[in-house]
This record gives sequence, C-alpha cells and structure tokens, in this order.
Amino acid sequence: MADYFAMDSRQCAQELDSLRKIYEEYAAKGLKLDMSRGKPAPDQLDLSMDLLTITDYKGETGIDSRNYGNLEGMPEARRFFADILGAQPDEVIVGGNSSLNMMYYLIDLGWRLGFADSPAAWNACGRPKFLCPAPGYDRHFRVTEYFGFELIAVPMLPTGPDMDCVEALVKDEAVKGIWCVPLYSNPDGYSYSDETVRRLAAMKTAAPDFKIMWDNAYCVHHLTDTHDVILNMLEECRKAGHEDRALMFCSLSKVTFPGAGVAAMAASRRNIDYILKNMFPMIISFDKLNQVRHIRFLKDMDGLAAHMEKHRALLEPKFRAVLAILDEGLSGCGSIARWTKPNGGYFLSLYTLGGCAKRTVQLCREAGVVLTDAGAAYPYGVDPQDSNIRIAPTFPPLDELETASRLLCVCVRIATLEKLLQRQ
Amino acid sequence: MADYFAMDSRQCAQELDSLRKIYEEYAAKGLKLDMSRGKPAPDQLDLSMDLLTITDYKGETGIDSRNYGNLEGMPEARRFFADILGAQPDEVIVGGNSSLNMMYYLIDLGWRLGFADSPAAWNACGRPKFLCPAPGYDRHFRVTEYFGFELIAVPMLPTGPDMDCVEALVKDEAVKGIWCVPLYSNPDGYSYSDETVRRLAAMKTAAPDFKIMWDNAYCVHHLTDTHDVILNMLEECRKAGHEDRALMFCSLSKVTFPGAGVAAMAASRRNIDYILKNMFPMIISFDKLNQVRHIRFLKDMDGLAAHMEKHRALLEPKFRAVLAILDEGLSGCGSIARWTKPNGGYFLSLYTLGGCAKRTVQLCREAGVVLTDAGAAYPYGVDPQDSNIRIAPTFPPLDELETASRLLCVCVRIATLEKLLQRQ
Repeated sequence: MADYFAMDSRQCAQELDSLRKIYEEYAAKGLKLDMSRGKPAPDQLDLSMDLLTITDYKGETGIDSRNYGNLEGMPEARRFFADILGAQPDEVIVGGNSSLNMMYYLIDLGWRLGFADSPAAWNACGRPKFLCPAPGYDRHFRVTEYFGFELIAVPMLPTGPDMDCVEALVKDEAVKGIWCVPLYSNPDGYSYSDETVRRLAAMKTAAPDFKIMWDNAYCVHHLTDTHDVILNMLEECRKAGHEDRALMFCSLSKVTFPGAGVAAMAASRRNIDYILKNMFPMIISFDKLNQVRHIRFLKDMDGLAAHMEKHRALLEPKFRAVLAILDEGLSGCGSIARWTKPNGGYFLSLYTLGGCAKRTVQLCREAGVVLTDAGAAYPYGVDPQDSNIRIAPTFPPLDELETASRLLCVCVRIATLEKLLQRQ
Repeated sequence: MADYFAMDSRQCAQELDSLRKIYEEYAAKGLKLDMSRGKPAPDQLDLSMDLLTITDYKGETGIDSRNYGNLEGMPEARRFFADILGAQPDEVIVGGNSSLNMMYYLIDLGWRLGFADSPAAWNACGRPKFLCPAPGYDRHFRVTEYFGFELIAVPMLPTGPDMDCVEALVKDEAVKGIWCVPLYSNPDGYSYSDETVRRLAAMKTAAPDFKIMWDNAYCVHHLTDTHDVILNMLEECRKAGHEDRALMFCSLSKVTFPGAGVAAMAASRRNIDYILKNMFPMIISFDKLNQVRHIRFLKDMDGLAAHMEKHRALLEPKFRAVLAILDEGLSGCGSIARWTKPNGGYFLSLYTLGGCAKRTVQLCREAGVVLTDAGAAYPYGVDPQDSNIRIAPTFPPLDELETASRLLCVCVRIATLEKLLQRQ
C-alpha cells in the first residue's frame, strides 16, 4: 500500500485494477451481511432471559402492576429512571417500550398545542424549524420532518454540535428545538463537552419555549474502561434559569430487549404535569408489569452497571475488530479516510474522501454487504460532502463482521481511486 | 314497599324518613367501596399468570420477537386477531398494550392529515364533529373532545344508536365519524342489531372519508349462555362499497392483564397501508415479545373461548347479585328506575327518574361507595335527563358488591322521594 495522493494516474489505475480483482473475489462469495442498523445481537438478548420468568407483579407500594392505572409509571420505576437520568422521581414519566415513541409524542404535542411555556402551538408560526446536529440519528430527524419542520443541519464536532452555529441559529424564533444524543452520539460516538452542555442550557433563544430533545440513548453503554461523562442537562438548564428547556430520554431497549424494553423521560415538574395532563386522553396506562419486571431484574444502578458489563464483553471485541481492520486496510493509503473511535454506544463513523460515501456503500451492497445508506445521518438524507458512512458493528457475528469490514476497506479504496482518477 | 307514585306527600315523607335511618346505618359503617371503573378483579388477573413464564420468543416464521422490526406485528398475532375481528391477517395491525391508544392515534391522524380517502385533513373544515351514541364510553368521547371535535350525542337504543338520527346527522360534511361499542355496549350492555350494522355500513355520508370507530372491546366477554352475535362491520362496509369506512379494534386487556395486554385493529388494506406508513416515524415496533407470549398462552379461538369461560365463572355471580339486589330493592317501588340486563361485557346501566342520578351518586359517595360520576357516559359529561348511572360490578369482591348495591337501592329511593316531594 502507498499514499494514494502520491500516485500518478497510471499507478492509480494499476492499484484500482488489482483491487477490483479482490472485490470480485468477495462478490463471488455470495455474501449476505447486514451492518445497517444498531440492533443488538441475539447473544446480547440472551443476557436478559431471566427477566422473562419474573412473576412478582406487586409494586413496592402495593400497586397491582397488572391492572389499569398509574399513567406516570410504577413508583420504583420512576425512582430507577430518575437515578439513570439524574432527576427526581416526580420529574420522570416511565412509558412503554419505545423512547422514540415518547419523543414523537412530544414533538407532536409541541407542534399541535405547544408546551406549558409556549405562547402558541409551534405550528402557529407557519413553518417551525428544528436543529439537527449532523451526522445524527435519522429517526430523530424523520420525526420533525414528518411534522413539517424545516430541518437545519448543524455541524457535529467531537465536543458536540458547533455551538457558535447553534447560538446564531436560535436567534430565529421559528427555531423550536434541537435533537441531541449527548453521550456516544449516533453515529460518531462523540460525547458533549461540559462547555457545550452549559452553552446549550444558558443560550438566549428567540423562542421562549425552545426545547432540547436530550436523547441519552447510550447513557450506560460503555465499551471501554474509559467512561465518558456528561453534565446533567436538566440541572444545567435549571441553573441557567431555563428549567423547562430540557426534555431528557432514555431507554432499556439496548439493555434488555429492543422491542420489549422500557422507555422513560425526565423534565421539570411543570413540564411533567403538563405532559401527563395531555397524555391522559391518549392511554390509560403504559405496561407497568414490564416496568416492574425490569426493575426486579436490574435492581439498581449497580445491577444495571454489572449487566452492561456483560454487553460490553460481547460488543468490545466487535468494535476492536472493525477498528483494527480499518486501520490495517486504510491507514497505509494516505489520508483517504478517517474514522471515530468511540468509548461507548452502538456506532462509529467512517469519513471517506468527499464524494466517495455513496459509491462505497453501493459497492458494498453489490457485493452482498448492506450498510446504512450514505447520507442517512443527515437531514433529508443528504450528506453535502457525501463523506459519512455509519458503521453498526453490533448485530453481525464477529467473523461476518470481519469479512464485511475487509470488504468495506476494499470498497473505500476503489471509490477513492475512481474519484482520484476522475480528478486527474 | 309500595308504589311511590301512588303515595301522597305525607307517605313519601314517612318513607323518606325511614330510608334515611337505614342510610345513616350504612354511613356509620365507614364503607370504602369502589364501583366506578371497569377493572377486572385480581382473581381474574390470576387466571393468566402462566403467561408470565413463557420464554419461547421465536416467531413461527423465525422472527426474534425480542428485537426491533415488524411494526405491523408478529405474523401469528396478526392471524389470531384477524380471527377475532373477522378480517384477513394483512388487514390487521397488532399494537401495544392499549386499544385506546390506537384509537387516539387514528383520531389524531384523521384530524392532522386525514385518511387515504380524505380530500383534506379533518381539521381543515374548521370544527369537525363526531357522533357519540349516548350513554357510551367516556374515554372515547374524551379523545375527540381533546382534539376539538364537536361531540354530537345520538340516543342509544337496545338495537344500537338511533339510526334515523345518525342518517340525518351524517348529511353534514363536518361529521367525520361515529364511536361504537357494538357488542355489550358500555354502559348499557346492548348489542347492535343486524339492521343497525347494515345501515351504518350503507348510509350515505356527506364526508367521503367518514369513519366508524368500531371498538369491539367485549367481543369475547360473554356472561351467560346467550352469546349476542353481531355482523362483521368491515365485511358489511365492503358489501356496501364503503370498505374504507370501518376501523375495528379489540384488546386483550380484559382477557389477560389490563395494563399489559395486546391491542389490535383491523381495516381495509388501503387503510392499513396508509396507517403503517404514517406510524413509521412514530415507533420502531410494538412489543412483539408480549404478542408472542399472548398467542402461545391463548393459542387460538378455542383456547380464547375456554379462557373467557373462566372469567365468566368469576363475573356472572357478580352481575347476578347486582341484578337480584336491584330487583329486590327497587321493583316494589313502582317505575322509579329501570336497569339493563346484559349478556356480556363489563357494565350495566341503571336509569333513575329524571333528575335523580347525580343526587343518587352523591348520596352513595357520602356513605363511602364510589360510583362512576353521573353523566360521565354522555358527551361533555352531561346527561340531559340526569338519569343514567353506570354500574361496574367486576372489581369489588362479591360481599362488598352486595353491600354497595343495597346502599345504591336505598340512595335511589331517597333521591326519588326527594324529587317527588319537590314536585308535590
């Protein structure tokens, strides 16, 4: 391998030729591998099977979790999630199996009615806008897109969203909020710096009811001994006199079962009261039985941490393998790509040379490896640089992951050479 | 006891006096009884405890129900609910723990965007209207009230909503739909006649996207050997050329666990496709693990029927007891009240003399027995006759239920006498 930028066009063509032969060998294998979504692998799900035989349904205060009632969630579940989210139990609503569903509900609520601190419904301003640190989580962006918000991309830095940019944008009253995955961000695996959190909490926003959608999806999902730590957004907002600004979320989907976990949110008491009042017509109660079983199974923060160590034991080798293969397969070619090395979460980002991401993903797919669509991590699915590829190493078995990663390196190199040859 | 209408005012006063003494004896007991909501009793919930230890999570087609995916529901669950609802599996969406939540979602969808057959969103017409057969289910009415619909009461007859009235009202294009509990209606326990179903399916509506919210909540909840039978609304709508009119719902909340059951809906393929497309931004998937466990536990229509017989064994004595006490306590006083005698469901209706329901409920409450608020079964909580009281016999133990029912009779008689004395 040699620095591609030091090659002349003949050398590039030669290298491309030999890579295409390797690519054909992969293609001939009839691979059917999927690195597209952040799904836990079956061995991770097996870690929680003991949860399924817990039959003790009685809450600590005598509530029969099997029956109707207690829309706000079981008391012990509110306390458990308050501990995770850094809030008081009465600042927490424990919901159903999906934190995305709770976020959707709150965007809907803001759009349709506004919040307790809103002068009007968000939709009253014509076309409201929402800030989308990019690359970010496609399903977040899609919620606001669905409700007709204009999505405004904000560059994502290793310290979180570019705060100079955010502070400039929130001077527009139509900007109603921002999506955040503050710890081990999707897809980069970046964690927000203390300065970023403080600036988000303190900044002056033209919209008096600006909301930070604080999706702490990977709050306990460490992959190494280095545990990234972030400030408590609700606390920082309170200090800054903006306690109604933070809406914080977390989920046990990637702790126990993705389809059958428990989601929760935390916010100021004023927000919680307002939200519960609005949720009342929607549902009698969430699945409290599942809440109780989860708390019985995970017990407390120590129990949760111990359980997450078991996930780490299964996931860390996968992340290490991908990183080693990227290093081995790409580092020798000069600066044709860079990638993130997260301490936790479910993803890493691979950045190709501009204009090479789509082609790389296409090459992979044609050889039987499905990656997340290039651009998916950007508002409207468009990466202006065509550079970012989200890598999701969790679901495939290790050997398949290694094969897919090797093929990926070959595809990045082919796409790069094609681009360099075009330029010459 | 004697016919109250044959008494003169002195006799009335005398009778009232002696009833007040009986009432004071009840009040002195310090009762704390609740007949207000349609909650299954703990012994009913115990019938399904074996469900909780089912650990087989694999779907029949190999789907891992623990993981993400399959928004439409597990294939075996779609087939099971298709059998219950009288639809094809691909006409079914299996959801989370709450059918009310699905109905809320669809009212929201209609209000915000409309349906596949809508010329515009329902909210585009200014103030849309919704038909509410009354007495009916308060939580239905509240959903449409919350979204700002004008609620139009339609008299509920033993054959279902007064169809002459419905057919006249739907000539108004602002009328977008009707709430229905077609079998063992809440609170009367009436079942819709074939003629009612056919007229609902066939009637000409000014709104081309008129929807029948067909909440078959008590579809398998028989209380006697006489099983009421209703026509299949989706089928009748199809025959009448209106297959997009019917949105049908059912729930296992009163089959297994009220807070942790499984809900489902059925509609035309066109509706299902449209709804799934719109649900996609909202949630990755519902709790499929709970779906699989429910199907493994209940198995099929025979298993379901056998399980419901166990519920009947617990509930029938409660309904019989209430009916016997009402007969014993009120029949001798002349036509001061009438009550329904349902063959299934969760409620019966007691109709007092006009203007006596609120007073009766108040008297009961002051003596320690909570009934559903008088008027709750009517749009905006207002019973224009002040006559209907919803009786929910399922939750209290039999002895408490008997005490509460006897007190209820005393309260009805007191309220009646007070009214008669006022009139004289």
